[in-house]
Amino acid sequence: MFKPEILPELRNRWKAIQKEMSRKGADGCLIASNVNLFYVADRVYSGYFYLPVKGDPLFFVRRPVGLTGSTVFYIRKPEQITVILEKEGIALPQTLLLELDELPYNDVVRQQSVFLPEQTLNATATLRKVRSIKSDYETGLLRRSGEQHAACYAEVPNLYKPGMTDIDFSIEIERLFRQRGAIGHFRVFGQSMEIFMGSVISGANADNPSPYDFAMGGGGLHNSLPVSVNGTVMTPGTTVMVDMGGTFTGYISDMTRVFSIGKVSPLAYKAHQVALEIQSDIEALAKPGVAACDLYNMALERVKKQDLLPYFMGYSQQAGFIGHGIGIQINESPVLAPRSKDELKEGHIFALEPKFVIPGVGAVGIENSFAVHKNGIEKLTVLNEEIIEL
Amino acid sequence: MFKPEILPELRNRWKAIQKEMSRKGADGCLIASNVNLFYVADRVYSGYFYLPVKGDPLFFVRRPVGLTGSTVFYIRKPEQITVILEKEGIALPQTLLLELDELPYNDVVRQQSVFLPEQTLNATATLRKVRSIKSDYETGLLRRSGEQHAACYAEVPNLYKPGMTDIDFSIEIERLFRQRGAIGHFRVFGQSMEIFMGSVISGANADNPSPYDFAMGGGGLHNSLPVSVNGTVMTPGTTVMVDMGGTFTGYISDMTRVFSIGKVSPLAYKAHQVALEIQSDIEALAKPGVAACDLYNMALERVKKQDLLPYFMGYSQQAGFIGHGIGIQINESPVLAPRSKDELKEGHIFALEPKFVIPGVGAVGIENSFAVHKNGIEKLTVLNEEIIEL
Repeated sequence: MFKPEILPELRNRWKAIQKEMSRKGADGCLIASNVNLFYVADRVYSGYFYLPVKGDPLFFVRRPVGLTGSTVFYIRKPEQITVILEKEGIALPQTLLLELDELPYNDVVRQQSVFLPEQTLNATATLRKVRSIKSDYETGLLRRSGEQHAACYAEVPNLYKPGMTDIDFSIEIERLFRQRGAIGHFRVFGQSMEIFMGSVISGANADNPSPYDFAMGGGGLHNSLPVSVNGTVMTPGTTVMVDMGGTFTGYISDMTRVFSIGKVSPLAYKAHQVALEIQSDIEALAKPGVAACDLYNMALERVKKQDLLPYFMGYSQQAGFIGHGIGIQINESPVLAPRSKDELKEGHIFALEPKFVIPGVGAVGIENSFAVHKNGIEKLTVLNEEIIEL
Repeated sequence: MFKPEILPELRNRWKAIQKEMSRKGADGCLIASNVNLFYVADRVYSGYFYLPVKGDPLFFVRRPVGLTGSTVFYIRKPEQITVILEKEGIALPQTLLLELDELPYNDVVRQQSVFLPEQTLNATATLRKVRSIKSDYETGLLRRSGEQHAACYAEVPNLYKPGMTDIDFSIEIERLFRQRGAIGHFRVFGQSMEIFMGSVISGANADNPSPYDFAMGGGGLHNSLPVSVNGTVMTPGTTVMVDMGGTFTGYISDMTRVFSIGKVSPLAYKAHQVALEIQSDIEALAKPGVAACDLYNMALERVKKQDLLPYFMGYSQQAGFIGHGIGIQINESPVLAPRSKDELKEGHIFALEPKFVIPGVGAVGIENSFAVHKNGIEKLTVLNEEIIEL
């Protein structure tokens, strides 16, 4: 089932979930979403992972064939799970954690009808909490994603040719990412946010309001996926903001750099510098125990002082956050937003993305991924942060 | 909210849903998934679509800003929907359709707590049934996807260079698809099946069992997405099966062609010809009223007669179907499988994919998309069907 070297890491994850289960009075936890299966089993499979509050987990597999291990059981349907648990002498849970924010309603109802728990609690919330604290191993994966991400961005200027549209440019960047090992598939929490690899936002497209809660979505090529490139020709005096997902290791780094065609307006340069100052402010202050909302509010103060509020995090439509946890998905805990109740913890990894939309120019600003350590934060996506002229 | 030219098409879709609602005794239908919003509103937005069993629908929008129309209402939370319905003099539904197989459990529970219906029925089943019958407009979109799909495949041989790995080859094919207008994002029904643009399966990778219910998944590059390319070097005597999604129009065509490095074994050529014969059998027989399981069983008979059963639809692990409906998602109704209860209807559009895995060679076979018309089926993905030597 696993490579032996990953087992100590997985055991720690299971223990962390069990600790939360204990705290909530849950006896069992059933996982079936790909994201959480990857977290608890280091692989995606079709089936279920069952964790009792004490002891080892069991792996119930529909597909693929060929997985081995004393705790691996092949099943065709979830009704077999409880039969096997009873055979194994494992008491059925009275309080069961199920993935209430991830699995479709009917899947959860079927799981409840199999287990008949007295009480169902939300495994999604528990897993998101546990997953928000990255181990050294996970931080290493995100550090590696960040390095590959930065190496790709360093090559982005070589891909530009005058007269390109945003989609031409995006396609070359996508190819570069794939050539450097990006898996491509971009995981977002919440069924309603979809995106393809990331976004490349050129000029006026930065101000196209998005249905998604991404900072600066862009209009998209098609009504069925209204995000990112929309066919804008990249013209002098405008910017192009590259915000691709760093899908290199199963853990997604997040990073944005802004490029320009020739020079842009003084307001655009000023706003970009303010974004860098916001980042510096937060780098100086962020450490375990700091409230995420305080970081947001500190950013907002600087924005107001510089009279940039109308442009902050969008112009026609503004995003309500400046940072978000990253990991297996692009939107994990913590959230850096005005009403966030999160506080930074050692092991958190988040993307910080103060950005502005300047009418007539496009998007400016910065995004980097940071790991929270005992005494401060570590930047995982290191590369020149100025606006790079193409 | 809409381009006026799409309105008659949308009205027909709403009417088709209302007809099903009537049949089931439902008063209202609430839609919130991107796929179904795109179907009922020709665009993805963050929010809800509410359709009473009689009369016009209402559009409840969270984002983006700027949508207009007399039936567009901006909201922040679902609790506002019923307040607005009451203001508009629309009776609250007693029997409500909700997307039970698409939306997370907690979303559905919240919707139920807003509407307090006496009975909840499954909008997913209803919408999948209605969506399975394509209008002329939708058939046109799938025909256009199919044409672009075939045009891309015609260029695939130009992308091959000796010594390439499957990932090298896939990256060039992905780029070609994007250059020809593919949106890239690949929509699959069911939360557990994930894929990036499609699959390119070279040599022995064809026999890597997948956790997903795709025919011939491939091992993948990473445990977090175990599907498609796995780094196999493309070597003489093996095949490479290209099965990308035709995401050109919001409606996904499905098409597979097999290429070879030099010549392959006689068994591989034989199996490929049998796949083509199965396709011919089905082309001759398929029309409205024919049972999907009969088409599957006819294929199986030919496979058995040719002693190819061990290789059919996989070797180590076999897929249990040879065809599936296509549309906004890659796996719609009908399903061509042994126990399918579907029968072909005018307006169905399905992919037919008889395939074999030949150990030592790789995957062979064919996949095309077909529209069901009154008197038979129309191939939407027209291109040479032999194994093309690279």
